Amino acid sequence: MDQIRTRRRRRTNAKPSKSRNPNYSQLKHPFTPQKAFSDDEINNIHNTALRVLEELGVKVLLPEAREIFAKAGAKIVDDMVFIGRDIVIGALKTAPKNIHLRCANPLKELDYVEGAMIFGPGSGCPNVTDMKRGRRPGGLESHIETIKLSQHYDVIHMIGQSAEPQDVPIQFRHYDMVRAQLEFADKHMHFFARGRGQVMEGFEMVQLGLNLSDDDFQNDPWMTTIINTNSPRLLDNPMAQGIIDYARHGQLTIITPFCLAGAMAPITVAGALTLQHAESLMGITLAQITKAGAPVSYGGFSSNVDMKSGAPAFGTPEQFKMQLGGGQLARLIDLPWRSASGSASNTADMQAANENNTALWGCLMANATFTLHSAGWLEGGLSFGYEKFINDVEVLQTMAELCQKPLGNDAEIGFDALADVEPGGHFFATQHTMDRYETAFYQPIVADLRNFGAWEEAGAKTSAERATGIWQGILADFQPPANSGEIVERLMPYIEAGKKRGGSFPLE
Amino acid sequence: MDQIRTRRRRRTNAKPSKSRNPNYSQLKHPFTPQKAFSDDEINNIHNTALRVLEELGVKVLLPEAREIFAKAGAKIVDDMVFIGRDIVIGALKTAPKNIHLRCANPLKELDYVEGAMIFGPGSGCPNVTDMKRGRRPGGLESHIETIKLSQHYDVIHMIGQSAEPQDVPIQFRHYDMVRAQLEFADKHMHFFARGRGQVMEGFEMVQLGLNLSDDDFQNDPWMTTIINTNSPRLLDNPMAQGIIDYARHGQLTIITPFCLAGAMAPITVAGALTLQHAESLMGITLAQITKAGAPVSYGGFSSNVDMKSGAPAFGTPEQFKMQLGGGQLARLIDLPWRSASGSASNTADMQAANENNTALWGCLMANATFTLHSAGWLEGGLSFGYEKFINDVEVLQTMAELCQKPLGNDAEIGFDALADVEPGGHFFATQHTMDRYETAFYQPIVADLRNFGAWEEAGAKTSAERATGIWQGILADFQPPANSGEIVERLMPYIEAGKKRGGSFPLE
Repeated sequence: MDQIRTRRRRRTNAKPSKSRNPNYSQLKHPFTPQKAFSDDEINNIHNTALRVLEELGVKVLLPEAREIFAKAGAKIVDDMVFIGRDIVIGALKTAPKNIHLRCANPLKELDYVEGAMIFGPGSGCPNVTDMKRGRRPGGLESHIETIKLSQHYDVIHMIGQSAEPQDVPIQFRHYDMVRAQLEFADKHMHFFARGRGQVMEGFEMVQLGLNLSDDDFQNDPWMTTIINTNSPRLLDNPMAQGIIDYARHGQLTIITPFCLAGAMAPITVAGALTLQHAESLMGITLAQITKAGAPVSYGGFSSNVDMKSGAPAFGTPEQFKMQLGGGQLARLIDLPWRSASGSASNTADMQAANENNTALWGCLMANATFTLHSAGWLEGGLSFGYEKFINDVEVLQTMAELCQKPLGNDAEIGFDALADVEPGGHFFATQHTMDRYETAFYQPIVADLRNFGAWEEAGAKTSAERATGIWQGILADFQPPANSGEIVERLMPYIEAGKKRGGSFPLE
Repeated sequence: MDQIRTRRRRRTNAKPSKSRNPNYSQLKHPFTPQKAFSDDEINNIHNTALRVLEELGVKVLLPEAREIFAKAGAKIVDDMVFIGRDIVIGALKTAPKNIHLRCANPLKELDYVEGAMIFGPGSGCPNVTDMKRGRRPGGLESHIETIKLSQHYDVIHMIGQSAEPQDVPIQFRHYDMVRAQLEFADKHMHFFARGRGQVMEGFEMVQLGLNLSDDDFQNDPWMTTIINTNSPRLLDNPMAQGIIDYARHGQLTIITPFCLAGAMAPITVAGALTLQHAESLMGITLAQITKAGAPVSYGGFSSNVDMKSGAPAFGTPEQFKMQLGGGQLARLIDLPWRSASGSASNTADMQAANENNTALWGCLMANATFTLHSAGWLEGGLSFGYEKFINDVEVLQTMAELCQKPLGNDAEIGFDALADVEPGGHFFATQHTMDRYETAFYQPIVADLRNFGAWEEAGAKTSAERATGIWQGILADFQPPANSGEIVERLMPYIEAGKKRGGSFPLE
């Protein structure tokens, strides 16, 4: 038994005058990366991936991409591209190891580099769900709300596309998505790669909105996109064009095969990783042979399917092992890399929390540079949950706190404080406590630490139910960043002209 | 965006004929321990703790314990004991580094040694709660039910006292608690230290029930107890007597100060750890000077209070740092050690899951030998939650799976399987998949991976609600271990005689 005899005391005058302002904006991994495979095994996976590219090849649908590969010396047979390992190894030499991510607020810029710990929100969700309005298709309103939620918390380092604004016609949607990020956020931006028309207009809007010269825009990336290969071994038109366009304009592509072991990837951890690695190397290579030195990131988001239903699973031990292996492969090629957390749960429950925690710890143990889907991702990405987001942010903030080592000097150890308190006494009133109590501990945002009676009296709300009030408060009090008004003013004529022209349809 | 295009396929004939039988019974930590403090800082904490024992002393209420300290050379002033560092250092030399924990089932015996990863259930709870019967004081029925739940899952390595059977008179309670463990479980047993009368009767019952000679019983421990000091610097009567009695009879005491930073311990991580360390060293010393070589474990269960309410908090960043520091101190004195997870949440919600996950990962990152309260602990230990227990076991099993490294040989990498599948195809039917699909992945116990529509149609149950059916099923199908009947037969006359004598009241 642990005999918990906490002598609880309600602290009077407990309104902190000193405020605790931890900096969650730029984080460094606090733990040493862990391994799933031996170095020999990782080399074997890497070499097999090179063999896959060389001998089995990749189907590349976009002729322009095949031409770029051909010029670099790859063998082309119909739409198949066979990439010699010398081409890949050459590309890895020019791929940057440190990418400075820019944004409207200089204090929120990020170094995308090995050892950095960057969190992005749940992204790419067609639906949203909250306990006030239920589950529904994402629309412009929820798109904007989710941007505001991501903007609110420093520990969310980039804006995502958490809710797809499906009530905006597809040919105009990119206008609203880029405008909303510029209007309601000042963090590094996320954008899609849905064809050159939309992509170039998105780039132009950022330059226009933030008053950037071509050089300003292209020297370091202001926008990041996720490139998903169509595993196995297929690169479709918009993704290929995205790699090319982002590379040419100095914006960041993160090449992320989504390899589900047992479905679109081999059933083994090592096999799924081999396919992930081959495809990510292929995308990195295309970026580098398009423009040497272009910002591009290794990516891995591999997990397994549930063999009962064929559904994707997240936060599994197999995903965790793939995360560790992904980190080992990224370090082998000496590049920063992206992983992901998330949940397959259909609602904001313990399953959702457990899966996200496991996958987040996988990211930490693997030292992922960038963890996408770190908050709010439900149903394997088919839904963004508002209450889940708030609860996940609590976990991210807890992890961010771990980046700060505790002090171990004499003053912190506090021998005098220990001498001050008699056996069986308490430390509430010691000087050592009084000097620190306002700032000593992390202050939870949604955790309720009251005892059962007080909690029950207050309505016996679950952490999901409490989160409702929190996101409502954030949205009600939201203040757009400074300059928001003038940015939008500059953008509106551009958007109106674009709409008059009929917008830009995605590339199929 | 991650474009998740999983081509889900309902697998026909998907009833596994090969069954997946992972061994969760004896686990080794898969990750290297992480540090919160520099080696110098840890040495400083250790030396300050020695100074606390030597200069500030500990109030020891039990005269017998003071006499043992006096004989070992400690200075006694009234009820204060001042322990010179030479006495402590001598004790650390005789404290065992590997303790073999015995139990009725030889396959479930454990090596309590640095690097082992042992999980115990939530323990010491006065209340229980489940979604069928609500929250209520623990009674004999729930006491037995929680033993059955712990017995059911291999990943729960010891039996705890999850629910206190308060409907049994206190002087008879130990009879039922020991009998219930012997009747319904065959794992290493947990017992209290509530005074010599109860303790000796408990020891006798184990010898009698399992037919053990004195030597059999005393050579390696069959029972473990948690010794909580009354921080700061106070050791009460039953705890002191427990250390002495368990040491004399070769049973294991785990000396665990429960140091809440800001309440019964200094407000800093380093200060709380210093007090924890001093008190744990004091208990280890008492065990060793009572009987050199007696099984005793270092323990740390330090966290912080919520400065708003004074309530204990769990799964906090401060607790995590104390866990890392606790691991460093245990390795400094080269002893296995105990930590804990748990939750302050009042219900089985995301807060409960998040707190337990954080504290569990603290135990993993700190390489705790033994993690108590790993499943089911709510309200900071005031309640044991059945649904929480099931959901926590899912996390423990996920962690247990991580102990098994993935294979990285050519067959697992599967170049041939990669060659078999055309670009954009799937791996469902490859030989590589067919050979492995029945055993490749962890099978969740409570996670529901169906899509939203199927989940909604099935009643839209949360993971807590689904857990209700799971614990009900376990209890309905429960089979006691072999020999259960004859064990109870041997015990009953002893218990009846004890009750006739009036039982044994706890020591105050």
